[in-house]
Amino acid sequence: MPPHAGKTMLYQKIFSQDTLLMQEALSLAAQALGRTSPNPPVGCVIVKDDHVIGRGFHPKAGEPHAEVFALRDAGFRAEGATAYVTLEPCSHHGRTPPCADALIAAKVQRVVIAALDPNPLVAGKGVQKLLDAGIQVDVGVLQDQAIVQQAGFRTRITHGRPRVTYKYAQSLDGKMASQNGRQLWLTGQDAKRRVHELRNQMDAIAVGSNTVLSDNPLLTTRLEGVTGTRDPIPVIFDRSGRVPLSAKAMRPGAIVVTESQQEYPDFLKVIRTTHLPDVLQELGKQGINTLLLEGGPDLASAFLKADLIDDLLVFIAPRIMGTGRPSLWTELEGLLDVQELKTEQVGKDVLLSARIHPIPQVEAD
Amino acid sequence: MPPHAGKTMLYQKIFSQDTLLMQEALSLAAQALGRTSPNPPVGCVIVKDDHVIGRGFHPKAGEPHAEVFALRDAGFRAEGATAYVTLEPCSHHGRTPPCADALIAAKVQRVVIAALDPNPLVAGKGVQKLLDAGIQVDVGVLQDQAIVQQAGFRTRITHGRPRVTYKYAQSLDGKMASQNGRQLWLTGQDAKRRVHELRNQMDAIAVGSNTVLSDNPLLTTRLEGVTGTRDPIPVIFDRSGRVPLSAKAMRPGAIVVTESQQEYPDFLKVIRTTHLPDVLQELGKQGINTLLLEGGPDLASAFLKADLIDDLLVFIAPRIMGTGRPSLWTELEGLLDVQELKTEQVGKDVLLSARIHPIPQVEAD
Repeated sequence: MPPHAGKTMLYQKIFSQDTLLMQEALSLAAQALGRTSPNPPVGCVIVKDDHVIGRGFHPKAGEPHAEVFALRDAGFRAEGATAYVTLEPCSHHGRTPPCADALIAAKVQRVVIAALDPNPLVAGKGVQKLLDAGIQVDVGVLQDQAIVQQAGFRTRITHGRPRVTYKYAQSLDGKMASQNGRQLWLTGQDAKRRVHELRNQMDAIAVGSNTVLSDNPLLTTRLEGVTGTRDPIPVIFDRSGRVPLSAKAMRPGAIVVTESQQEYPDFLKVIRTTHLPDVLQELGKQGINTLLLEGGPDLASAFLKADLIDDLLVFIAPRIMGTGRPSLWTELEGLLDVQELKTEQVGKDVLLSARIHPIPQVEAD
Repeated sequence: MPPHAGKTMLYQKIFSQDTLLMQEALSLAAQALGRTSPNPPVGCVIVKDDHVIGRGFHPKAGEPHAEVFALRDAGFRAEGATAYVTLEPCSHHGRTPPCADALIAAKVQRVVIAALDPNPLVAGKGVQKLLDAGIQVDVGVLQDQAIVQQAGFRTRITHGRPRVTYKYAQSLDGKMASQNGRQLWLTGQDAKRRVHELRNQMDAIAVGSNTVLSDNPLLTTRLEGVTGTRDPIPVIFDRSGRVPLSAKAMRPGAIVVTESQQEYPDFLKVIRTTHLPDVLQELGKQGINTLLLEGGPDLASAFLKADLIDDLLVFIAPRIMGTGRPSLWTELEGLLDVQELKTEQVGKDVLLSARIHPIPQVEAD
């Protein structure tokens, strides 16, 4: 990037109008969370003379990008307008033509970008293309929110694997299952709903064979009163091939992770290793950006041991068990410090959100 | 209480001025938290023509009650005024003359009370005395806050024992000590300060012999920049008499709970049983309203087993231990449901506040 670009790109002031409009672009993008992989969720708003004249978001891979929908919505009025886009417009020919070209062709005057694209095919190049066309570019409005929204995509592009979120519930005294390993439903209705909202937004959901064999879970999204939900892809960790094909999770498109050599029907995908880094790389190759880890402590502890948990979502129920099994149990080399810990009330329960690994991002010059 | 009293006593509307003034009375009372036992903390504000003309709080047992200080402050201007008091004025001759009499003598016109006194010597009688003197009485303004502030007194008056708060810190994965039982300091500076604020307000602090022998803790209040702090009374659970007199916690006034028959010097108090219900009744007899349970999981688990933990304060640190000992470990008959669970951010840590047992209160008719 040429040295002069820095001044244009670094977003120095907070303009409240920019913030509000970028917030709307983020809200548009959020509608497609869990539907865009391997692409990121992206939203775009086009504004002229203080009026929003175009809105768009990327609905799913293979369909046009957010900018294209917003430009179509705006039509010829886009000339001289400002475009707010949650991720740096692409500059390369992928499945669709470059969005930077579309913005230039539409003669927008200014492009406001929440965050740069970590994809090395794009990073900074989209901005440069716009600058070269004489368009004013500002980067960094609501950057933190955008990066969180794009966390899965950013992790896959950077590390080749999906971002892994371990979700579990524990009692106030830190137990998640009875002594014999049986998981109890500890939390209330609000927390349950939150879990299904999460399933609606995550690409895939991982469970161990113990969970499947004991609970035979559906692993679907069930949100009363919400239309257009979708189910995450089940990823069933079944090292020795114990889970029968009759298990509810063995639905078309499910992925079986196993070391057994048994045959599986064509409607299932099979990964023939249980070495976690390899499994996750393979999931990444299949375009899975986000993996929700549910189920028991054994699988989660293996992920933790391999340093493959990126985020924790811990529901704490207002109950005390006295005895029981903890959520995680594995020898670590010293204490593992979490980057950030936040808390919120979810009905009668409490939700802790912890970020273990940072979300990959590209620093603007 | 005669049937006509009900209408006067039940506080139906929220008047924002009443709320603000009661808030001030509660703030006054809070200044003496941990200093008034066996009495409760009480605050009083006297208001006339929209001006506060008197303020008072009960500073410590043996000194006059809040109403007396506030009436002294107001002087002759109290005639026709409204008194806001956080607890029902007493009607009986204790160490001091009844406050209800003082309010009547001062000719106040109205008395606003946050909560009725659970002491059977007072409950409702203070209100009745005021009503009989033709004073308007309203009960229930900021009642919930007042009851929380008086929780220790209310528990001791009702159950004969102090209210027990177990405070501990655990990792995100629910562990509080290493596998060999060694406690680690998990939390940050803000949480540490909060613990010392708590010590400053609690009558006594309980630890087990293991904690004393391994850490030799001071168990004092250390709050930089705060004057007038006081230390809680150490209550050292030392069944077999292993703790030496040289331990820092063995300071004058400390209480040793033991089954050993050894002699102790006169500057210590000794309770010669470790049966927890008996120990707590004895602490209650000594006028201790609030007991802060610190230290390791063994003592706390024994309290939990005996159903003698009233409140939990759980600091959760942004760290993962992997293995370790849980904060509580004891067989319970089924899940113990907690009445209320709240959460707040304390620096980089999270604090969960759980109420296991309700705070005793007297319902207004």
